[in-house]
Amino acid sequence: VTDISMIRAAAERLAPVVRKTPILNSPFVDEIAGRRVFVKAECLQHTGSFKFRGGWSAISAMDEEQRKNGVIAFSSGNHAQGVSMAAKMHGIPAVIIMPSNAPKIKIENTKALGAEVVLYDRATESRDEIGARISAERKLQLIKPYDNQYVIAGQGTCGLEIAEQTNVKDADVLVCCGGGGLTSGIALALEAEAPSLRVRPCEPEGFDDVARSLLTGAIQTNNHVDGSICDAIITPSPGELTFPILNRLSGPGLVVTEEECLRAMAIAYERLKIVVEPGGAAALAAALFHSDSDQDVIVVATGGNVDPAMFTRALDTIK
Amino acid sequence: VTDISMIRAAAERLAPVVRKTPILNSPFVDEIAGRRVFVKAECLQHTGSFKFRGGWSAISAMDEEQRKNGVIAFSSGNHAQGVSMAAKMHGIPAVIIMPSNAPKIKIENTKALGAEVVLYDRATESRDEIGARISAERKLQLIKPYDNQYVIAGQGTCGLEIAEQTNVKDADVLVCCGGGGLTSGIALALEAEAPSLRVRPCEPEGFDDVARSLLTGAIQTNNHVDGSICDAIITPSPGELTFPILNRLSGPGLVVTEEECLRAMAIAYERLKIVVEPGGAAALAAALFHSDSDQDVIVVATGGNVDPAMFTRALDTIK
Repeated sequence: VTDISMIRAAAERLAPVVRKTPILNSPFVDEIAGRRVFVKAECLQHTGSFKFRGGWSAISAMDEEQRKNGVIAFSSGNHAQGVSMAAKMHGIPAVIIMPSNAPKIKIENTKALGAEVVLYDRATESRDEIGARISAERKLQLIKPYDNQYVIAGQGTCGLEIAEQTNVKDADVLVCCGGGGLTSGIALALEAEAPSLRVRPCEPEGFDDVARSLLTGAIQTNNHVDGSICDAIITPSPGELTFPILNRLSGPGLVVTEEECLRAMAIAYERLKIVVEPGGAAALAAALFHSDSDQDVIVVATGGNVDPAMFTRALDTIK
Repeated sequence: VTDISMIRAAAERLAPVVRKTPILNSPFVDEIAGRRVFVKAECLQHTGSFKFRGGWSAISAMDEEQRKNGVIAFSSGNHAQGVSMAAKMHGIPAVIIMPSNAPKIKIENTKALGAEVVLYDRATESRDEIGARISAERKLQLIKPYDNQYVIAGQGTCGLEIAEQTNVKDADVLVCCGGGGLTSGIALALEAEAPSLRVRPCEPEGFDDVARSLLTGAIQTNNHVDGSICDAIITPSPGELTFPILNRLSGPGLVVTEEECLRAMAIAYERLKIVVEPGGAAALAAALFHSDSDQDVIVVATGGNVDPAMFTRALDTIK
């Protein structure tokens, strides 16, 4: 299982390539929240989300012989792009299995980052079967989006940076949470480097599997995994590797509405000058609209891959 | 006149408060430009533009007795906000003289940053007379937006950061240019710290006073100073302090269209996840659409204070 030494090792492997993203703030944001808010702008990471950290960590940790064959991932979104770019920079093949009805722009971006994209029909084909067949034929290593100890270690490097970049004490660190790779990685990093900081996962209403899992102490699932504008953080349930870490270290989850995510995107645009996608704005939305404390709060803006139409919808909340 | 030792001194005064803005890049941007492009994201600076550097530099350099009385500035835009925030952080009064028809949001932001806003009617009143009267009565120090040696030194700290953050050699550094405070400050910093980098000012079509001044070796003026969406970088002419520096150190100016600025904003949104205003995108537009070299290029994205309606117009160029 992932521990702090694995996170530190991942940070060393990432050092030459990762973007150390800034922590941003604004008196206008503080005023809305009624407390000081510090935003770790991980949307400024390579490929527009923190996922590059985990992708690079996993690929750079592979045995060189194995790595040469390449990697495979299932994803239509940020993990696809993070793995593809990390693979490209290593000069190895990446195969990404994507649903044929994924947004065209994401398919094209993934191809443009050098990956071989294999499309499947969600209704009639099994992505697991296709993935298993291709992996076996070509000896590719599967990189899961969160239930992979090196991926968790890579995401945890974001937590090391938070500990190094801020002087804030006794604060919550709000993280947009899907399967929990980033949240659990940051939790482990803070446990070692800044134990007065406590992570709390943030999720959209109706997809609060992690919050419910933390409440009950056992993995809970969502009834469905579509129908949210926060696509980047919708997963069936917290992971088998990530949940035990969260259960031990995380504070209670926070749940936000889609409308609050759109308003948070607009405020990030207006006051911080960063582009955040709906799922990447859940933690900022929680800080702005669900304050249950007047303590300083740190927020991770996890990604910024959003279509112009959706971004315009967010801007409409302040026009 | 400003020299490298003044810039280094400004950097020391700024160190505890300035945001060291990141340099961003993307393979997609490189592909459009046909060369590697590195973007210094100064839109992420406090108040959303580099102007905070100059404001802080000027105020922090003042004699303490003089400073207590406060400062005054003429501006309806980014300089107003930079000076106001720097004054607020010093705990001193700031008076900003603004035209009564300035955008409401800019007036409100400036007030919210603690400044006393004095409105004047552009048609019937002289801002210089109003400013002179208030300065005399209250013993305020005027902080000009670019023809002030401490302001130039403050903007120059952006150049020190560029020299420190990049390994690029023999490259042009494209800077969105109004009166030339930032461009001349960066030029001086690079002369000392990275002499293989050369600044070049970028301006919108029809407002290319700096490019023409450099061509002729003497200060040229624009026929008019309104009617551009690039409001942040429209000035009558380069400054008396800034032009001699530019004339000595700058490469030829680059001129871009408004449409190119809007497209550059959209590409910065899509590929770098930053919010850039039209005038702040002129240098990126020059890198993308006016390449006259295949060498690496560094671009300063100078500001991000843009209304949602204008930003939506930019996004429409890629929808």
